[in-house]
Amino acid sequence: MATLSETSRIEAFSDGVFAIAITLLILEIKIPASGAVPLSTQLARQWPSYISFVISFAFIGIMWINHHRLFSHIKRADNLLLIFNLLLLLGVTAVPFPTAVLAAHLGGPDQRAAAMLFSGTYFFIAIFFNVLWRYACSNGHHLLAAHADYAAADRISRQYAFGPLLYLICFALAWVSVTASLVMNLLLAIFFALPPDSKSK
Amino acid sequence: MATLSETSRIEAFSDGVFAIAITLLILEIKIPASGAVPLSTQLARQWPSYISFVISFAFIGIMWINHHRLFSHIKRADNLLLIFNLLLLLGVTAVPFPTAVLAAHLGGPDQRAAAMLFSGTYFFIAIFFNVLWRYACSNGHHLLAAHADYAAADRISRQYAFGPLLYLICFALAWVSVTASLVMNLLLAIFFALPPDSKSK
Amino acid sequence: MATLSETSRIEAFSDGVFAIAITLLILEIKIPASGAVPLSTQLARQWPSYISFVISFAFIGIMWINHHRLFSHIKRADNLLLIFNLLLLLGVTAVPFPTAVLAAHLGGPDQRAAAMLFSGTYFFIAIFFNVLWRYACSNGHHLLAAHADYAAADRISRQYAFGPLLYLICFALAWVSVTASLVMNLLLAIFFALPPDSKSK
Amino acid sequence: MATLSETSRIEAFSDGVFAIAITLLILEIKIPASGAVPLSTQLARQWPSYISFVISFAFIGIMWINHHRLFSHIKRADNLLLIFNLLLLLGVTAVPFPTAVLAAHLGGPDQRAAAMLFSGTYFFIAIFFNVLWRYACSNGHHLLAAHADYAAADRISRQYAFGPLLYLICFALAWVSVTASLVMNLLLAIFFALPPDSKSK
Repeated sequence: MATLSETSRIEAFSDGVFAIAITLLILEIKIPASGAVPLSTQLARQWPSYISFVISFAFIGIMWINHHRLFSHIKRADNLLLIFNLLLLLGVTAVPFPTAVLAAHLGGPDQRAAAMLFSGTYFFIAIFFNVLWRYACSNGHHLLAAHADYAAADRISRQYAFGPLLYLICFALAWVSVTASLVMNLLLAIFFALPPDSKSK
Repeated sequence: MATLSETSRIEAFSDGVFAIAITLLILEIKIPASGAVPLSTQLARQWPSYISFVISFAFIGIMWINHHRLFSHIKRADNLLLIFNLLLLLGVTAVPFPTAVLAAHLGGPDQRAAAMLFSGTYFFIAIFFNVLWRYACSNGHHLLAAHADYAAADRISRQYAFGPLLYLICFALAWVSVTASLVMNLLLAIFFALPPDSKSK
Repeated sequence: MATLSETSRIEAFSDGVFAIAITLLILEIKIPASGAVPLSTQLARQWPSYISFVISFAFIGIMWINHHRLFSHIKRADNLLLIFNLLLLLGVTAVPFPTAVLAAHLGGPDQRAAAMLFSGTYFFIAIFFNVLWRYACSNGHHLLAAHADYAAADRISRQYAFGPLLYLICFALAWVSVTASLVMNLLLAIFFALPPDSKSK
Repeated sequence: MATLSETSRIEAFSDGVFAIAITLLILEIKIPASGAVPLSTQLARQWPSYISFVISFAFIGIMWINHHRLFSHIKRADNLLLIFNLLLLLGVTAVPFPTAVLAAHLGGPDQRAAAMLFSGTYFFIAIFFNVLWRYACSNGHHLLAAHADYAAADRISRQYAFGPLLYLICFALAWVSVTASLVMNLLLAIFFALPPDSKSK
């Protein structure tokens, strides 16, 4: 029989990881040095860094909102849930790397490879979100709260089911157009920021 | 109908972000290497780094006190509150960047641009604080605790209303005098560190 | 008489340390610059960094699961427990260093020394886990919950007893074969990720 | 009248700051590159980095134990307590800087200045600990728990009273002998790790 425990420490640990990952993003922006070029010009030239900072912040923030939403339903934990949660956090902590690569190469000759790495990361994260959630809902929602709103849980399942496929399209789209791929990434972020059933909001 | 949830995880996540942002500041101070110049002289020459470390620490600390004060009233959360809180944290995590730019250029030819970037950041943060708080108080204080002290909440609203305008003046003042702008920044920090109604303190 | 206190703040502090250590790992991966070599080739050449990132993430994650498991039994704290917990966290926070050394030297002429440093770190961590746990169980399980499952606690004791010896073999094995030592490290991680009594899972 | 609030969010925020400060220390240790000198020799030459890592870890850990001990008595907070706690955390987050300076200069011609910076930091932290604690105990222990053990609180007051003077001696001692000053630092750390009344342990 599975040993079930409370989820409060999982949430605390995950909150810590999300908080750190989202706060480290600013370290990727370089401090312009004094020189021949005025500071204001140097600051203006760093636009790819600002864009990737804001995008990554939004993405990690939205992932945190989703994690928060899942764990408002999940109330029990077993060993596999701990491991699936770690797998998801592996994806979250990795985000600063593809973000920095994108910031360094956006507008340059290698921007296609950078955009594919970026979308590819979110493809894996979308899979990990599905694995975590589907496991918690499996066997008659065995890890959800006793009084869980199963209809709300099923709406989350339906919304998440599209995630991996949509990020795979994003990934392929980067081969055709980096701009189109990044715009689609942003639209997906907004889609997942919204609660699964907009009528209930 | 809005799905309302408890605010404890929002506070935990926000505490994490504030704690990390305030702790990362020390990393901006460079470690002097051995060389011809004695260590004590090298340490003394780094005064702009120490000033911007202490100022930023005070500012993030005071923002944390304010966040703490708001969430002693806010007791329910919906999706928009989550997003407005993330927007505020976006401003908080960005603080190390304008701070480091100011530390690198204070006393140099580009100090005016650096001071404007610095004040500009706090202008946006002041707006985000207002948006978060006004949303929580809207519709008859719908996200405040059932037993909230509405008079205290209204005092916060009145104090915050001045924030964006005052920081805009700070921003413009940097064009005239960098020193005056930084002094006004410090005075504003003290103003917002104090509780809205000093008689109740 | 020992002054006993609750363990919730120890868990919160430890969760913070684990969360930060696991999130900092990504900073060890370098961002490839634009240049003659295509980005995709540069990314592919960084495979030792990715391997050591995933291994270290898994190890810190599994150590967190173990810490979580121990503190689901430990419910009281005294000064010595605080100090033994700090000693364990000293090992945990040190992990990014041997990991980065391994990433920098894997496949190079110094990989044997790097692998020995890596296994040696886990040898000390295994000892610290044993010290913490055995102290909590000593004097008739004096720091465990009043209603603790002593049979489960004893299963943990038996599983942990092998840790230091097994990591010592790992350490010695690195002298013979770096690959064999790393494979054994991975197998040990899986062994400690599993709950002590697989029948109860 | 003072607005009093619970201390749980202060503890959570402080735990975050302590956890991050203690985890960032490892980043100060440089990763040796491949080269003419064998890795094992390079690792051995970094002994000042290891010493200052372990010392700083122990110091931050012991400061956390002390903070934990104080807040097992302090149960109410007002605005001044928030500010005194921030002042203490300012000292804690600053610790990685004097530590890194000491690691870079220990054994070199500038080690005296480095050791004085190191002891000087702890002198200020000792003052901030006293200010926080004496304020909480002032006006008839007005911020302590209603059921606080006043005898235990007074023992803490007596132990802390010596702190600033002892660290001042440490600071002056560095002018005479760096080694003696660092040894005295270590002894003081052990003195403050112990509970104020060893008989009650």
